Amino acid sequence: MRMSELSRRTGVPVPTIKYYLREGLLAPGERTSPNQMRYDEWHVHRLRLIRALIDVGGLSVAATGNVLTQIDDPSRSLHEVLGKAQAAVAFSRADGGNDADPEAQDRVADLIRRRGWQVRPASPATAALAGLLATLHALGQDDLIALLDDYADAADRFAAAEVDVIGRRPSVEAMIEGVVLGTALGDVMIAAVRRLAQENASARLLGVGPAIDRRPPDTRGTPPAESAT
Amino acid sequence: MRMSELSRRTGVPVPTIKYYLREGLLAPGERTSPNQMRYDEWHVHRLRLIRALIDVGGLSVAATGNVLTQIDDPSRSLHEVLGKAQAAVAFSRADGGNDADPEAQDRVADLIRRRGWQVRPASPATAALAGLLATLHALGQDDLIALLDDYADAADRFAAAEVDVIGRRPSVEAMIEGVVLGTALGDVMIAAVRRLAQENASARLLGVGPAIDRRPPDTRGTPPAESAT
Repeated sequence: MRMSELSRRTGVPVPTIKYYLREGLLAPGERTSPNQMRYDEWHVHRLRLIRALIDVGGLSVAATGNVLTQIDDPSRSLHEVLGKAQAAVAFSRADGGNDADPEAQDRVADLIRRRGWQVRPASPATAALAGLLATLHALGQDDLIALLDDYADAADRFAAAEVDVIGRRPSVEAMIEGVVLGTALGDVMIAAVRRLAQENASARLLGVGPAIDRRPPDTRGTPPAESAT
Repeated sequence: MRMSELSRRTGVPVPTIKYYLREGLLAPGERTSPNQMRYDEWHVHRLRLIRALIDVGGLSVAATGNVLTQIDDPSRSLHEVLGKAQAAVAFSRADGGNDADPEAQDRVADLIRRRGWQVRPASPATAALAGLLATLHALGQDDLIALLDDYADAADRFAAAEVDVIGRRPSVEAMIEGVVLGTALGDVMIAAVRRLAQENASARLLGVGPAIDRRPPDTRGTPPAESAT
């Protein structure tokens, strides 16, 4: 197909496609005449992947280029690609200026030890988490910090399910794409369902909506008491 | 304290503090002479809160101002504030241009129905989730979409734990601050522990580190076979 058709199929404007070609995010098409290139289904998929990482994952064009380089290099191991994809998905300056706080760093090291996690000591996530805990502590939000173990329990379950799904894919390329998209877009999927669950919990607790459970918290697991009929 | 001391205590530069004062994010100090204002611990806490929302939560200055307006209005209900905080924490253009995809919208409606969630039909999270599912489907990643129920299970547990923690706070103001920070910074905390859990799962599965399990996936729940001694 021509570039105009590629643009129509993917919804990406022609000047943007030309920009991605110049930046090396998209490989050139096949030259069919001196002024004409032909593009194929690989280009359609690649453009959708680029737009997903940028628009949904919130990656910069440069970070997207880094991730795609990993996808394109078949000599990389899946574990290497996961590390690179993680590094590319930025934590919006999550250190908050407190990344040297020793108490927060100890708390993160303690979490990693308790869970038996095999992670690089210099993982960007370690620094981001320590910075976040230091920020929450400075704001007097230690009760929110106490939720960390609940989040870590869930993260372990997520990782097991993700590894299982991606491990069933038919090719290494498909696995690598799954790691990249699962890392970048999984955060957004979790954030979205978390908003919905919070809205629901808030509506039920605070009395908006039809089904309000006003029983004390420790009896809510049991069915409502009904009078004998 | 003077503004120079406020800057030193919080690490926020003086010109930035003046900008927040002009934008109404920070209330003026007490005038002690024609050229001199005095600031107190409220200002220290408020500046830390502003920086946490911007630096860690990734909110814009305008979105931060919207959230602070909610905190400052004691007539708002907690449920209203939660909704406003959710709306302020942007999903980086998560619709990906596919937000009208009816199949993805049906899938989200089905999820909400199955879980019995009481949420507004026009919740920003609903649109963000539908857009994300449409993007993943267009990229051929339906196996990642199948993880949605795992994420939703965890989100329900998170919301219950968060509501419990915040409900124990001594004042409505502290509860509102907990809702805002829990919404904005909780995403980052979850993303960070998720990176660590993924790195650990990847290391164990893909053969980096000491504890490698090379058995086929369907036998991994059982202990390794050992020769009789």
